[in-house]
Amino acid sequence: MALLTGITGPRDLDRLSPEQLEQLAEEVRTFLVESVSKTGGHLGPNLGVVELTIALHRVFHSPADRVLWDTGHQSYVHKLLTGRQDFSRLRAKGGLSGYPSRAESEHDVIENSHASTVLGWADGIAKANELRRTGDHVVAVIGDGALTGGMAWEALNNIAAAKDRPLVIVVNDNERSYAPTIGGLADHLATLRTTDGYERFLARGKEVLNRTPVVGKPLYETLHGAKKGFKDLVAPQGMFEDLGLKYVGPIDGHDIAAVESALQRAKRFGGPVIVHCLTEKGRGYQPARQDEADQFHAVGVIHPDTGLPVKSSGADWTSVFGEEMVRLGREREDIVAITAAMMRPTGLHKFAEAFPERVYDVGIAEQHGAVSAAGLATGGLHPVFAVYATFLNRALDQVLMDVALHRCGVTFVLDRAGVTGSDGASHNGMWDMSILQCVPGLRLAAPRDADQLRAQLREAVAVDDAPTVVRYSKGAVGPAVPAVARVGGLDVLRETGAEQPDVLIVSVGALAPMCLDVADLLDKQGISATVVDPRWVKPVDEALAPLAERHRVVVTVEDNSRAGGVGSAVAQALRDAGVDVPLRDFGIPERFLDHASRKEVLAEIGLTAPDIARQVTGLVARLGGHDSRFDGAEARGQIARD
Amino acid sequence: MALLTGITGPRDLDRLSPEQLEQLAEEVRTFLVESVSKTGGHLGPNLGVVELTIALHRVFHSPADRVLWDTGHQSYVHKLLTGRQDFSRLRAKGGLSGYPSRAESEHDVIENSHASTVLGWADGIAKANELRRTGDHVVAVIGDGALTGGMAWEALNNIAAAKDRPLVIVVNDNERSYAPTIGGLADHLATLRTTDGYERFLARGKEVLNRTPVVGKPLYETLHGAKKGFKDLVAPQGMFEDLGLKYVGPIDGHDIAAVESALQRAKRFGGPVIVHCLTEKGRGYQPARQDEADQFHAVGVIHPDTGLPVKSSGADWTSVFGEEMVRLGREREDIVAITAAMMRPTGLHKFAEAFPERVYDVGIAEQHGAVSAAGLATGGLHPVFAVYATFLNRALDQVLMDVALHRCGVTFVLDRAGVTGSDGASHNGMWDMSILQCVPGLRLAAPRDADQLRAQLREAVAVDDAPTVVRYSKGAVGPAVPAVARVGGLDVLRETGAEQPDVLIVSVGALAPMCLDVADLLDKQGISATVVDPRWVKPVDEALAPLAERHRVVVTVEDNSRAGGVGSAVAQALRDAGVDVPLRDFGIPERFLDHASRKEVLAEIGLTAPDIARQVTGLVARLGGHDSRFDGAEARGQIARD
Repeated sequence: MALLTGITGPRDLDRLSPEQLEQLAEEVRTFLVESVSKTGGHLGPNLGVVELTIALHRVFHSPADRVLWDTGHQSYVHKLLTGRQDFSRLRAKGGLSGYPSRAESEHDVIENSHASTVLGWADGIAKANELRRTGDHVVAVIGDGALTGGMAWEALNNIAAAKDRPLVIVVNDNERSYAPTIGGLADHLATLRTTDGYERFLARGKEVLNRTPVVGKPLYETLHGAKKGFKDLVAPQGMFEDLGLKYVGPIDGHDIAAVESALQRAKRFGGPVIVHCLTEKGRGYQPARQDEADQFHAVGVIHPDTGLPVKSSGADWTSVFGEEMVRLGREREDIVAITAAMMRPTGLHKFAEAFPERVYDVGIAEQHGAVSAAGLATGGLHPVFAVYATFLNRALDQVLMDVALHRCGVTFVLDRAGVTGSDGASHNGMWDMSILQCVPGLRLAAPRDADQLRAQLREAVAVDDAPTVVRYSKGAVGPAVPAVARVGGLDVLRETGAEQPDVLIVSVGALAPMCLDVADLLDKQGISATVVDPRWVKPVDEALAPLAERHRVVVTVEDNSRAGGVGSAVAQALRDAGVDVPLRDFGIPERFLDHASRKEVLAEIGLTAPDIARQVTGLVARLGGHDSRFDGAEARGQIARD
Repeated sequence: MALLTGITGPRDLDRLSPEQLEQLAEEVRTFLVESVSKTGGHLGPNLGVVELTIALHRVFHSPADRVLWDTGHQSYVHKLLTGRQDFSRLRAKGGLSGYPSRAESEHDVIENSHASTVLGWADGIAKANELRRTGDHVVAVIGDGALTGGMAWEALNNIAAAKDRPLVIVVNDNERSYAPTIGGLADHLATLRTTDGYERFLARGKEVLNRTPVVGKPLYETLHGAKKGFKDLVAPQGMFEDLGLKYVGPIDGHDIAAVESALQRAKRFGGPVIVHCLTEKGRGYQPARQDEADQFHAVGVIHPDTGLPVKSSGADWTSVFGEEMVRLGREREDIVAITAAMMRPTGLHKFAEAFPERVYDVGIAEQHGAVSAAGLATGGLHPVFAVYATFLNRALDQVLMDVALHRCGVTFVLDRAGVTGSDGASHNGMWDMSILQCVPGLRLAAPRDADQLRAQLREAVAVDDAPTVVRYSKGAVGPAVPAVARVGGLDVLRETGAEQPDVLIVSVGALAPMCLDVADLLDKQGISATVVDPRWVKPVDEALAPLAERHRVVVTVEDNSRAGGVGSAVAQALRDAGVDVPLRDFGIPERFLDHASRKEVLAEIGLTAPDIARQVTGLVARLGGHDSRFDGAEARGQIARD
């Protein structure tokens, strides 16, 4: 790492010779494999942008020039070149974020992990530069997969409208987002690739596998030596030029000099330019290149030589869903599945294998996933759209205006709901149970264990005249939590012998075991607590109000924003029923959550059994009849002993 | 109307001769002008699609074939041809909807007034037809303006991916959405228009102004006589073919035979086809054609001959905003404005006239409006994005993930918030104060009168590290409602002499006069009521809890969904402060609202002074100390006498 450790900022790149730049790229790759294999992270995407990132920082002068990354998980190399080389706690509490972070560096702009935003950001910054006459440049890096998102189109249409406002768009084309990119655009990009340069790129790609790239110069010479205008250099231009965007490419994205040359020309052009770079996800790392599914898009801790996971994970929510979908698919021919470029991460690949004609990958296009689902339902089918909870924000208008208004039977399955942890603020799925509350007719289930997930998914797809939602957490699914009784639609998880029990705990989803712990802790304080799982949290079950009325305090616990969440809905339902029992709602406070493990985040925001028990104890005491000597430290000890 | 009255369904069109079809078109146009001038409605767009709609219903056999309309305000002709000719109560309670309506007709599919959705619906229905082997056809009509929306791109990308799944897209190209369409796409469509056919179209367009169109056959003959393949017929194809979509056009959209011929070929093709039709908004109606601004996109009651409004409206919220923006623009050079193809409807045209270089029309692209605003703010400016409240749903993810997460100083101005009435379910702005509650750091103002709008807009643009929102109603702004005191950030609108008053009414925005009426009605029942306007409804002001504690009941009144709205937020803030005073929250119930006047809708959902007063009286009585003889009928009488 002789060269890499000497890079403290982008300008240190200026003094390196072509040979040294090649050596640096090799060092970066070695660093990424060694480091990310220890911590987990987005290995494949970053191995693909080593040379591209070096070239970007040589041509553009960040931070005055803004170097913008779409879906910031491809910013590891950028971090290494801008003074951040301690990756030992990547994505862990207190360590580097897995995405750009303004708190970390003035070179970072977009922290958001949601795709297809970068062109909109670039358009806004370019407009500001123009109006303020700064003379600074903006360059946006976007993957071919992210170009399938509607935001990218909206931005391209705006960017193209200003012929003399400088803006450089680098299309990082690896023919895949998570999985291979689909659709008309992907086909079009494929035609753009049909040049001699692309053939050479493919041929050379095979040579460099698993070792330092050999940087040849064929494209560089073509570009640099010929000194032609853009238009003459390249063929075919296709739709980008139809829109009024200058196009240059395709460029070998692993040839630093070629990329630099193209970027220099684009920078000088004085208007919007697309630079089409071809890269390989997982470049230079054999295990990634051989992984057909997603080329090590995101990995856990792995053995650096083999790429095999160090520990295998147990049953998770995703696979429980994926397997039940296959069973449902066998039973009902009308069930079809939709994914937004996340076939495997959502567990739909098994359904796709069993029923290839009944699954639709719509690209990174959640809006289209939802609206086309309305069309599928109107056409007589029952679509199941599996999507990460955080990405459903993109489709709220379509859930409301297309699916719900038209009473379409569409099931949304929200994976990674609640606190997800290491991916940081924008990956938490903590808004779904709030924003969906106002969707008329929508029914929302939060299963507490694998059995409930299977059962509630079946209940959801049985509804044919309204949207249904099933939401569950990230990762391993806990042991079964049995119900001791059923009251209305509610599962009673814990009863008390008390005539009038003190506390009714309404537990949402995977927090059931923690809520049972809360009840045990309260019990030790002489406070009796019932625990119920409403199963369907929207609408609020009619059995809840009479049950609440028999208690002195109602407590709701959810893994979702407190603002407008299940707690608020329960409180409103109780008010409407004229039940004015005091209620306290526990959930995620109104702020963005820094990256850390799920457990650390939950502890930080007070979503732990001791914290909740302490607060409930205080409340009960204030309402009279109990003392409040109880405290959290004591409670933690009790939990540990149990 | 000899022919029109004989059309009871689309198949009645089959027996008409070319000459009779021309006569029918003339009758339809006459009907539209006479009828819509009496009721108000979307006149310009429907005058533009008379011939196109006739041709569509001759070629496709609805309802088995699905004829889908984007932004359904262009469906009046469709209604006339599918058995709905009583337009006397168009958009009024109990009358025809201004949009397609499944309750009205089996020929209607998409009720939603939000743009750019139709291609997604068509893709879904086409997939269902394919899977179920129905053999039915799908045809989607979309305006050139709506093609600027990201959803259209996402859909095109998916549609193009299935080369042998039949789907006909009619691009209704009038070079404008509300106003002229902007962006790279618009430029590209312009190049597609550069054919002889287009020149003839323009020339003939002038001839037919204000009288029956003379249907010539040049394009028809070219298409029909030559019997060539699509590709040979037309030039240039451009980006649609780059995406893999067959393209035919441009077609004179006012030439029934030419459109029919193109549609027949498209129907037979067996894959996705774009038929590019050129039309004139307001076709055949002189006042509309001469209106540069929006060619009578939507009108109130007008004189049919002159097009002049029958009554001039007074000062409205929109113009108060528009004028204050001009003043702010003069004071602060960093303020820029954004609109999503709604310059005039949002009142930004005055700012645009004064500061043309500081306003950005992004097209029908709310996502881009929000994300580019984040970029503008990061670049050192303060953007004000003016948008209808209902359309902000489209940009929730960007408000949350781009603006709020990055602490950008962006002001969103939401026009037409709350119940809007005649445009029906999807035009009400009744979700904004719910879905925005969970956006960390966001501040939301609901001004009660013109003075407050001006003041709070100024307060909003002074915030440079968080999103701010100012939301107000549709239409005329009421008289000033003075504050009698200020407590914390709250305006006290009405105080009582009582030591411990009974009721605290928290009034949101334009409902202040009604809330004062409620207080008067309660007064007459011996119930004392304080009325406060929180001004900023998010975050809940800290002064509210101590004030609430001095009352026996808290009542919130808002023109927004009850689910997760201001009432829920106030209730949560009181719980968090340990104030367990009973609260009742009045707002819009969780359902979609049928079209009717704003007043009728408010009465139907119980958002009237007598209704609220009656319920509050009952609640106070139940809590003890007051009798409940009060009823709504009595209260209405009292209001009328006051």
